[in-house]
Amino acid sequence: MADTEFGNKLGTSGLAFLPLYKQVEKHVTQLIVEQRWKPGDMLPSEFQLASEFGVSQGTVRKALNTLTDEKVLTRKQGLGTFVAEHTGMPALYRFFPLVADNHSPELPISEVLSLTIEPANKSIAKELDVKAKTKVVVLKRRRTLNGEYCLLEDIYLPYSAFTGIENEPEIPHTLYHFYQTNFNLTVHKTEDKIKAILADEADADLLAIEHGSPLLMFTRSTKSLNDQIIEYRITRCRSDHYHYLVNFD
Amino acid sequence: MADTEFGNKLGTSGLAFLPLYKQVEKHVTQLIVEQRWKPGDMLPSEFQLASEFGVSQGTVRKALNTLTDEKVLTRKQGLGTFVAEHTGMPALYRFFPLVADNHSPELPISEVLSLTIEPANKSIAKELDVKAKTKVVVLKRRRTLNGEYCLLEDIYLPYSAFTGIENEPEIPHTLYHFYQTNFNLTVHKTEDKIKAILADEADADLLAIEHGSPLLMFTRSTKSLNDQIIEYRITRCRSDHYHYLVNFD
Repeated sequence: MADTEFGNKLGTSGLAFLPLYKQVEKHVTQLIVEQRWKPGDMLPSEFQLASEFGVSQGTVRKALNTLTDEKVLTRKQGLGTFVAEHTGMPALYRFFPLVADNHSPELPISEVLSLTIEPANKSIAKELDVKAKTKVVVLKRRRTLNGEYCLLEDIYLPYSAFTGIENEPEIPHTLYHFYQTNFNLTVHKTEDKIKAILADEADADLLAIEHGSPLLMFTRSTKSLNDQIIEYRITRCRSDHYHYLVNFD
Repeated sequence: MADTEFGNKLGTSGLAFLPLYKQVEKHVTQLIVEQRWKPGDMLPSEFQLASEFGVSQGTVRKALNTLTDEKVLTRKQGLGTFVAEHTGMPALYRFFPLVADNHSPELPISEVLSLTIEPANKSIAKELDVKAKTKVVVLKRRRTLNGEYCLLEDIYLPYSAFTGIENEPEIPHTLYHFYQTNFNLTVHKTEDKIKAILADEADADLLAIEHGSPLLMFTRSTKSLNDQIIEYRITRCRSDHYHYLVNFD
């Protein structure tokens, strides 16, 4: 059952760190973010899901209950469980905080500008918690929302955890799911540090804005289930038509 | 028992919306943020706290357990419950996201620039969900971290919920606790929308920075336990020595 409908079983490396039902919850969320299941779609039965994911039916039920509470899913009596059809589903976008003003959250499309393998400089090595000159993957992307270039990303990955990434036929838009399916790394936590900066010439050109325009810059440190830093990302984004959304409660 | 050691009993208006132990948890957190209880201090017994707050001992225990899990408190066998002495206590700062680079979270001191009662303009009325020209409190503050002006706040409050605020002898630094003790309004949720802007002349002067410097601007909508908007706040802050910190998990 290596090749299931969902592309993979749940990774088992982090079981001790996150309850199994929480992992199922995150995985189902990713599948919806990826649009493998679309709003209005009926989910497979709990029995089927349990067998796909290699967990008990009770675990699947617990995960689906939470997602129903969060209004990501809806239950229809006697019919089954469906992907909710309303739009603002914050749980789905918990890792992607940029929202177009007066719009619902949406995932931007991505364009890979370059992918190289390089020795880490001191600052990147420190952020990734590896030794200087360790091999890292450097992935540069430009992302588009509503037909407008909105952000640039420099993404740094420890090569040892992503060996072979340069041979992948395609780098998909939503990296976290790709990390999970192709490298068995599940994103567990991220920390963003946000600053305001002025666009330098290179960024201004790539975003088709004026040199010196104000940009949000956020640096993100991402940890997997076993608390390893698996990605460091420097994002610069326009905020004239977008905002970074944070909810505290 | 109107005037207890802690200044107030818990408000009862929102009981239906947030479990009682969660309210106790928030209240204890506020008392620590306010430094009424300092790192290393021993808390009163559960029995005393229950009587102070007017709740059951089981409710107090549940709240303290959560705060112990979050490492805000520590239990010492046979001695009692203490305010944790380590520094980075994220739970305490969940509503204040600005952190000095390479420092632990800290609450900035505040200086009131002005407090006026005005009819709301259209945009503020919309944000506060009241009719245009409704009376609102406009409070302007400047805040300082590590001896440096770091941010400016324009705070808008519906006057009907804050009647008499203009006669308060003092507006304390930490407003949320003040709202709770003096107006029986408990902050439950906030939503920040963050953008990057260029400092205008007035803000640049007040912050003692150059006109045109990049600033983070965040607009915050704050809801009380019964889901009413009780505050709208526009913050402009430097980010050359500070960052806005966000954790997702």
